[in-house]
Amino acid sequence: MKGALLYEGKAKQVYEAKDATGKLILSYKNDATAFNGEKKSVFPGKGRLNNEIAAHIFSMLQDQGVKTHFIERLNETEQLVWQTEIIPLEVVVRNVAAGSITKRLGIEEKTVLEPPIVELFYKDDALGDPLINDEHALLVASITQAELQEIKTKALAINIHLQHIFQAIRIQLVDFKLEFGRLACGSIVLADEVSPDTCRLWDVATFEKLDKDVFRQGTGDLLTVYEEILNRLEEQK
Amino acid sequence: MKGALLYEGKAKQVYEAKDATGKLILSYKNDATAFNGEKKSVFPGKGRLNNEIAAHIFSMLQDQGVKTHFIERLNETEQLVWQTEIIPLEVVVRNVAAGSITKRLGIEEKTVLEPPIVELFYKDDALGDPLINDEHALLVASITQAELQEIKTKALAINIHLQHIFQAIRIQLVDFKLEFGRLACGSIVLADEVSPDTCRLWDVATFEKLDKDVFRQGTGDLLTVYEEILNRLEEQK
Ligand SMILES: Nc1ncnc2c1ncn2[C@@H]1O[C@H](COP(=O)(O)OP(=O)(O)O)[C@@H](O)[C@H]1O
Ligand SMILES: Nc1ncnc2c1ncn2[C@@H]1O[C@H](COP(=O)(O)OP(=O)(O)O)[C@@H](O)[C@H]1O
Ligand SMILES: [Mg+2]
Ligand SMILES: [Mg+2]
Repeated sequence: MKGALLYEGKAKQVYEAKDATGKLILSYKNDATAFNGEKKSVFPGKGRLNNEIAAHIFSMLQDQGVKTHFIERLNETEQLVWQTEIIPLEVVVRNVAAGSITKRLGIEEKTVLEPPIVELFYKDDALGDPLINDEHALLVASITQAELQEIKTKALAINIHLQHIFQAIRIQLVDFKLEFGRLACGSIVLADEVSPDTCRLWDVATFEKLDKDVFRQGTGDLLTVYEEILNRLEEQK
Repeated sequence: MKGALLYEGKAKQVYEAKDATGKLILSYKNDATAFNGEKKSVFPGKGRLNNEIAAHIFSMLQDQGVKTHFIERLNETEQLVWQTEIIPLEVVVRNVAAGSITKRLGIEEKTVLEPPIVELFYKDDALGDPLINDEHALLVASITQAELQEIKTKALAINIHLQHIFQAIRIQLVDFKLEFGRLACGSIVLADEVSPDTCRLWDVATFEKLDKDVFRQGTGDLLTVYEEILNRLEEQK
């Protein structure tokens, strides 16, 4: 089923799908990294949790009409996706201030951002994934102004869908990071993953953090909170 | 003539103008600072040079129809300006890559940026004047989307005027930083200064740097190159 390993990232391995041109297998690893790879750890079972959570979320998004790379979950840690040419932007949507924006702008954590704020980071580990503006994006990401606008519009629409998905499981969607990719036909779809690695998720009642911040900040057990997210999503079905 | 000292910045003192409501006296200091105030030095005569250079440039911009805070040069180191409420944005226009953008995006110094790139930095010393995007600017700078657009359009128009001014004295305008302020009547004008402290200026023939980079990088004598700029501007008249 699995062909050549094309790329090994911090959280996933990317394989060719044998006898299926234009498809990839994403294999979720047990590694967690933070602060641009400075903090690292292995959590046996994390790969399964994120694979299942991401598969849940991508299929719900597809049901809502959002075009994504997701085809199907193959097994505990792997999913089949359409191969794309990843646009080297991390598109962050923020509903509530937390993390880097509080330091950059000197605003309090929990400040409500209404309307939500979209930020672009240049996906380049060597440069430390710097914040960039629209004009930088046009310079480094090989996209047109119209495509950039399309990506931002899509990110904001996905924000609405994700807010509903998480609201239903009593979670506030604080912020999240998306990656988009270009299919062979040229159209731009949501790619990569949506998981507690890439979202800030706070319990609506207790404000408990149910995401990678427990690892970044050393304030809780990563596997316990990721499991909690998966359980709530599964109850939902 | 001079009233109360309202503010002392890194490069200028700001005084009330006595018996002239709504006007300020900007007094240019001999201090040079770089790297957010980490590197400091005093250059006797710098204040006069920047006051005279800025006065030249602001009057030429006014002649071209650009609305600015500038009223007149009063003496060697002081100029009279309209009081404004400064919009806390450093608006940077780049025609050629140099300085922070080369590090942020990993591009070569001297890369031509066509069209020119506009960057916004949040003017806040405590935060280290961070790069921000348009949405951040609306959040922190108390301006509307239309005003932000107006500021960017003005910055690009000023770029054209400044390019012509410097071309005429055999200098390539690499990049520069502007500040805008709001007059009592509400309209937004160019404020602060335009000088070798705030522009990157390269000799068109030799590529020699004729700006504060000689101080930042320790590659030349600040007073000599600022004097060179003033002399070329004066020959021009
Ligand atoms: N549909 C897809 N097509 C091509 N590449 C993809 C797709 N989805 C995700 N990727 C890429 O897979 C790589 C592996 O993911 P990850 O381990 O998160 O990497 P990284 O450490 O670069 O963030 C990333 O570079 C991501 O952009
Ligand atoms: N027309 C104006 N009205 C009010 N403030 C002004 C005007 N022009 C410049 N300023 C402000 O004068 C201050 C002094 O200048 P400077 O020494 O360069 O300060 P800083 O160290 O904050 O950059 C700056 O805060 C600048 O924004
Ligand atoms: Mg990743
Ligand atoms: Mg200044």
